[in-house]
Amino acid sequence: MIPTQAMPDILTRARDAVTPALAAALERLTPDLRRIATYHLGWTDLDGQVTPGGGGKGVRPALAVLSAEAGWADGDIGVPGGVAVELIHNFSLLHDDIIDGDRTRRHRPTVWAAVGVGPAIVAGDALMALAQQVLLECPRGAAAARCLTDATAAMIAGQADDIAFESRREVTVTDCMAMSAGKTGALLGCAASIGAVLAGAPETTAGALRDYGAHLGLAFQAVDDLLGIWGDPERTGKPAGADLRQHKKTMPIVAALCSGCEEAQELGRMLADGPLDDEQVERATWLVEACEGRSWTANQAKAHLDKALRALERVRINPMAHRELADLATFVVERES
Amino acid sequence: MIPTQAMPDILTRARDAVTPALAAALERLTPDLRRIATYHLGWTDLDGQVTPGGGGKGVRPALAVLSAEAGWADGDIGVPGGVAVELIHNFSLLHDDIIDGDRTRRHRPTVWAAVGVGPAIVAGDALMALAQQVLLECPRGAAAARCLTDATAAMIAGQADDIAFESRREVTVTDCMAMSAGKTGALLGCAASIGAVLAGAPETTAGALRDYGAHLGLAFQAVDDLLGIWGDPERTGKPAGADLRQHKKTMPIVAALCSGCEEAQELGRMLADGPLDDEQVERATWLVEACEGRSWTANQAKAHLDKALRALERVRINPMAHRELADLATFVVERES
Repeated sequence: MIPTQAMPDILTRARDAVTPALAAALERLTPDLRRIATYHLGWTDLDGQVTPGGGGKGVRPALAVLSAEAGWADGDIGVPGGVAVELIHNFSLLHDDIIDGDRTRRHRPTVWAAVGVGPAIVAGDALMALAQQVLLECPRGAAAARCLTDATAAMIAGQADDIAFESRREVTVTDCMAMSAGKTGALLGCAASIGAVLAGAPETTAGALRDYGAHLGLAFQAVDDLLGIWGDPERTGKPAGADLRQHKKTMPIVAALCSGCEEAQELGRMLADGPLDDEQVERATWLVEACEGRSWTANQAKAHLDKALRALERVRINPMAHRELADLATFVVERES
Repeated sequence: MIPTQAMPDILTRARDAVTPALAAALERLTPDLRRIATYHLGWTDLDGQVTPGGGGKGVRPALAVLSAEAGWADGDIGVPGGVAVELIHNFSLLHDDIIDGDRTRRHRPTVWAAVGVGPAIVAGDALMALAQQVLLECPRGAAAARCLTDATAAMIAGQADDIAFESRREVTVTDCMAMSAGKTGALLGCAASIGAVLAGAPETTAGALRDYGAHLGLAFQAVDDLLGIWGDPERTGKPAGADLRQHKKTMPIVAALCSGCEEAQELGRMLADGPLDDEQVERATWLVEACEGRSWTANQAKAHLDKALRALERVRINPMAHRELADLATFVVERES
């Protein structure tokens, strides 16, 4: 958990607006699927009993609400978009945890580890379908559903690339950034524009907000990849060096492997071999840093934050929302979990 | 493969219309995902080389095309609906094969068995997103997408129930029929009405066609459940007695267990224990028949075929399409694979 004082107000404000709508949407699931979904979201235990705290940061719902406000509408207009994007995000987490074999998320067993692969697959599928249902019942829902579906398709393509990269020897930084643009950028681009779409804002406005979100997504992923190696397991809820152990081709690792520096060859050999033990993870971590994978990725985070902020300057959006979008972007890049 | 002469013309006609559009839609996937999808469809091997024959019967695309014609429009209007429904059907097959642990489909290894669980999950996800994209780009696509999304959600809920039933001792025939209505009926109901929706037919017409499809789905599932026990493995492509081995709660099995006849207790004990060997499968098959599970299910198939045909009488639809819909329903119930 991040201390509340570090969080921009919009995260709390959007959570207060989106959570009841999300809960209402989940009521449409069968009891079994609803219990899995609320467990996954950190709202309940597996018996459906309410648990304290829990839940993610809620960056996506916040973007959806601000996006409506940016388009000079009431933030509530963006709420169904926030619900839909959050459902798609959680569908992808449910499936990614199976694919990556991750047994822990937010300090608790992942759904597949707790109730089995089959129910976890079906629960993810159910959230994806529910997201579409929520949007298609709204005014201007068809345009918003198109925005969401295109983002979902791009996210899935990014996930397919991510899987393929794990067994591919040669992955360039260009490949890696394209994968991240799909896997993370597309849905954040959708989140940051879907409220404006629901508000009927002009396409130039929605387009600028989408670009802001897409670059924010790349900055977000860069920070995620840094935390995946150097993050504090206590704060991230993931084991230390998880990405190196899984031979994931994240930005710092790919940048190091492609750096042409001497240590890159040793790193390449280590990652081509079998599983790494704790000592090897420590050595590999050092090698990534020696090859400037850490600084390269930190620079990417800064560069894409900058591009995100500049996208907001392209159009005349509500200045209050503008400031909150900028603050949120800075928060995302400076977070430590 | 079923001999071509047994197939109603509409299956060939719809396949000729829908296959190129389906192929065009698949072009939007990444190469890796497209190769998995075309392998799953039986169009290619895993290297992307075209393979002879292959593919399912294509009942759903045929329904979509006839549905447009029933609504007094050109069959082509229904083609995007046929593509979308076929994509959703295949998304569900990809995921169901993982969930059920099925290693063989249409005489070939299932996708998860051939390339792994992760890629099979992602390929299913990709087909589900693609189905929505295809529809949302059509005229009247939003209404069609609502029809598809509601059916998809119902199908997923049915799949969740199906999983839950396997470990639940008490499943009534009512539970079982409700599960089949979701798992099979909803998508067939959508297939049979989506063309009319795309054609802008009145809701009464679309509703009658949806009811026809939903009952046809139950008849279809009843036949599927009969073939799952008594089908010829050579023709079905599935191992003999697969449903009994997997302790699936299909219609004949549930009807037998709920029959109150003496042999039901022995059957219940067998299915409560561990895996069945060949001899036990033979005994269990006999017990299901002795408890009239077979005749009960055959009667359900007939009854729902009848209800499907009567739904068509409720509205004034194109008589040519009416006859083809009736023929298709009869074919589905009389098929042997």
